[in-house]
Amino acid sequence: MLSLKSETRPEWPVEVAAHLNEVLIDHAHCEKKAAGTAMNLIFAYVDREPLCRELSEIVVEELEHFSLVLDLLGRREIRFRRLKPGQYGRKLNDLVRKLEPQRAVDRLLIAGLIEARSCERFACLRDHIQDAELAEFYGSLFESEARHHSTYVRLATMFAPEDVVHQRLEVLAAAEAEIIAPGEEEVRMHS
Amino acid sequence: MLSLKSETRPEWPVEVAAHLNEVLIDHAHCEKKAAGTAMNLIFAYVDREPLCRELSEIVVEELEHFSLVLDLLGRREIRFRRLKPGQYGRKLNDLVRKLEPQRAVDRLLIAGLIEARSCERFACLRDHIQDAELAEFYGSLFESEARHHSTYVRLATMFAPEDVVHQRLEVLAAAEAEIIAPGEEEVRMHS
Repeated sequence: MLSLKSETRPEWPVEVAAHLNEVLIDHAHCEKKAAGTAMNLIFAYVDREPLCRELSEIVVEELEHFSLVLDLLGRREIRFRRLKPGQYGRKLNDLVRKLEPQRAVDRLLIAGLIEARSCERFACLRDHIQDAELAEFYGSLFESEARHHSTYVRLATMFAPEDVVHQRLEVLAAAEAEIIAPGEEEVRMHS
Repeated sequence: MLSLKSETRPEWPVEVAAHLNEVLIDHAHCEKKAAGTAMNLIFAYVDREPLCRELSEIVVEELEHFSLVLDLLGRREIRFRRLKPGQYGRKLNDLVRKLEPQRAVDRLLIAGLIEARSCERFACLRDHIQDAELAEFYGSLFESEARHHSTYVRLATMFAPEDVVHQRLEVLAAAEAEIIAPGEEEVRMHS
């Protein structure tokens, strides 16, 4: 599914149910970070105008989701606050190669894999969570994350031939599956 | 006007007319940087939810402007490219105090002063430029920059009492007027 090499382990939605408020707060941070990632890519590759335009749309959509999650927290009287971040994003970003244009390919593909994993996790929550509002909410966010995944993979082909991009995507997707497999101490959207 | 302590020197619109394409490219960078500044403030003060929500709206509006300026460049067949940045932003950011909450007050007030100066410059272009499309374009952007100025000053009062914020705004506005007075070697939106 969406280039991913694994499905979420079955314990994850159970862990989420036991730490639901914390995962919802983490989700707000994820949307903010997704917007920040797209913005950083605009700054890094500003001379690629079509890329800047597509990334701008992603920033706007992620900030809309950020606002929707803040609304949800508000309705549940959960205070939005800083959280100890999970290790997932940092470990993935450690895989980014240092030299251009490989660096651009990796940054875009990793952003795309994070979107893909969010998408897969949202589907998992939609199907397993015992809370009608949340199940519907995660169902409604599913589609745009899938679209962002495709956009990022397509943008990567601005920096390398399509077959090279897809080979690298295979490598990074395998690494992503390995990083997320064991879970983490703190329950997070990507733990 | 809008807390500013000076009006643009009369030579500036003449300099712009002589380097119009470069200033239009710089304007696109300014909109991108304005979006980036608001995004950085979200990351820095993420535990202040009302601030995050207002800054998200600013990011979205600045990215819309970025896209409008890219459209304008496209219509004029001006290639968007990197430019040597002016000194204005860097010199203003050097004034930010290091310790919180003064740091937050300064970052917000300086963002507000940059919006105010953009607003004043847009009005100057609207009134002096011999190009109907551009005059109308800058007239249309004027209002939102003025609004962003007020938003930033209001957000600063989340970190310090109103009179303290307004005293500091006076100091920073005086520094801003001094920084922008002599002009710069490269003609820019804030030279």
